[in-house]
Amino acid sequence: MLQEGPILVYSVYASDIPRFEQLLARGLPDVPIHCATSPEEAAPHLADACILYGWGFPPEILKRMPRLRWVQKMGAGVDEIIKYWPFGPEVALTRTAGELIAPRMAEYVLAAIIEQTLHLGTARAQQQKRKWSYFEVGSIRDLTVGIAGLGEIGSALAEKVHGLGARVLGWRRSRRDCPCVDKVFVGKADLPRFVSNSDVLILVLPLTKETKSLFTDDLFARCRRGTHIVNVGRGGVIDEPALLRAIDAQLIGHATLDVFATEPLPPDHPFWENPHVTVTPHICGPLVPEDVVPHFLAN
Amino acid sequence: MLQEGPILVYSVYASDIPRFEQLLARGLPDVPIHCATSPEEAAPHLADACILYGWGFPPEILKRMPRLRWVQKMGAGVDEIIKYWPFGPEVALTRTAGELIAPRMAEYVLAAIIEQTLHLGTARAQQQKRKWSYFEVGSIRDLTVGIAGLGEIGSALAEKVHGLGARVLGWRRSRRDCPCVDKVFVGKADLPRFVSNSDVLILVLPLTKETKSLFTDDLFARCRRGTHIVNVGRGGVIDEPALLRAIDAQLIGHATLDVFATEPLPPDHPFWENPHVTVTPHICGPLVPEDVVPHFLAN
Repeated sequence: MLQEGPILVYSVYASDIPRFEQLLARGLPDVPIHCATSPEEAAPHLADACILYGWGFPPEILKRMPRLRWVQKMGAGVDEIIKYWPFGPEVALTRTAGELIAPRMAEYVLAAIIEQTLHLGTARAQQQKRKWSYFEVGSIRDLTVGIAGLGEIGSALAEKVHGLGARVLGWRRSRRDCPCVDKVFVGKADLPRFVSNSDVLILVLPLTKETKSLFTDDLFARCRRGTHIVNVGRGGVIDEPALLRAIDAQLIGHATLDVFATEPLPPDHPFWENPHVTVTPHICGPLVPEDVVPHFLAN
Repeated sequence: MLQEGPILVYSVYASDIPRFEQLLARGLPDVPIHCATSPEEAAPHLADACILYGWGFPPEILKRMPRLRWVQKMGAGVDEIIKYWPFGPEVALTRTAGELIAPRMAEYVLAAIIEQTLHLGTARAQQQKRKWSYFEVGSIRDLTVGIAGLGEIGSALAEKVHGLGARVLGWRRSRRDCPCVDKVFVGKADLPRFVSNSDVLILVLPLTKETKSLFTDDLFARCRRGTHIVNVGRGGVIDEPALLRAIDAQLIGHATLDVFATEPLPPDHPFWENPHVTVTPHICGPLVPEDVVPHFLAN
């Protein structure tokens, strides 16, 4: 059993801190808890903390934590942390399991698909003009939805999308079938065929050397005209200027983005005002205290 | 077998007519087809037509159709037609089956629920202001969704909503269990308990003497504060002025309405500009020619 030493809770969202504090104190009444939303706030507690629980911390702080025995990352992404990892196997690194994240991501993805398919933007524009004019709506049942990344989360998304009647394609690094995926494409060579067969592309990829800026001009050129792309994985997987060019060329009909190469998305970024881009501030991640704290306590 | 006499196709949406014509002509190349979008346009063909296929026609025209042998209604609602039915059993009346309509309604209902639960309106407002500010989102898994009307469509909706993890309540006239409904409430006496246990109310009720203006002040007073009401059945089931009072009193947090007591919704109706009302022009009905024509040809 780990020493139940001081816990350092780190979240860049200050508004989450009181709720994390309260939920942890209830579950672990005898353990000292320190909270931080910046490296400066974290500094006084680095020497002491045995457990680091959170997300958004600069991985460099790990080097200044000699008593650290466990890092529990909130969220599925640990690529940055692994890159800087200064410890051996004596320090445990765990992340929030996909089953906590998948349902929330599935809701976001379904909303994004239905929004475009039922033309709900058209309905909102008509309502603003008090205009009643029937328009034809599509249906998920007529779509082929391609999911890039068939890990725990991608597989769970596949199940939900399949459950609503879409044809589901998947793309992954290695050959392995997935229950609700009608066809699995494998490896980089298959990627153009994967995108050219999809009406909607859902990206649930981790950010690695292989995936960085993977979606760029040549791949967008292979997309079906008007493809809807939804990114809930990592922003860096998309070459953002290339995406804007693909939108201008109408190769991409709409982009629904919850993650970006730089977060927060800079105020002067062209995504904000592009009518074919939906920007959400990384809301379908696993950052909700009520979801993740019970998991942490169990670990 | 019916005499394959002239078919009168009736739809109030003129834009649908060419597509109906084309799809029917392809399926029934030897049968004369007449089309109308108003009683005036229908008039010259009433004496002759053996089959009336459509929706939105005034039921009075039936009396002027002596050769009529079959009325195929598009859409599930036949209450108005039955009220005026001037024939005996020698004329057949059929309607579009629920299985054609249910998936489209399910997509609409899921979009409506997720829109409110993930606060996508907030995301849109922030995007307009180029504002990146994380906000906490809810999840369907934390909702109790009450479905009023557990016919073919209501049962299909229950399955989809249950599949996304919501607790599902149902309300119907007679005691009968439904696979994906956690608790069924029965009859008018149970209605207040049904609404007071639901976070979201989905109305899929036909318009009958019993259901007309069923949702009125005393029932809204029993709702949970902030209830989201979604009507995809018949507009007349809701007392619209009472709904507006319930919104003002914050008993109803949001109303997503695809059907109205009067359609098209009059331009001066207060629903249009109410920020807590989403108006769509009856888009999730069964009016899509590609869906309904194959069914008609099979009949």
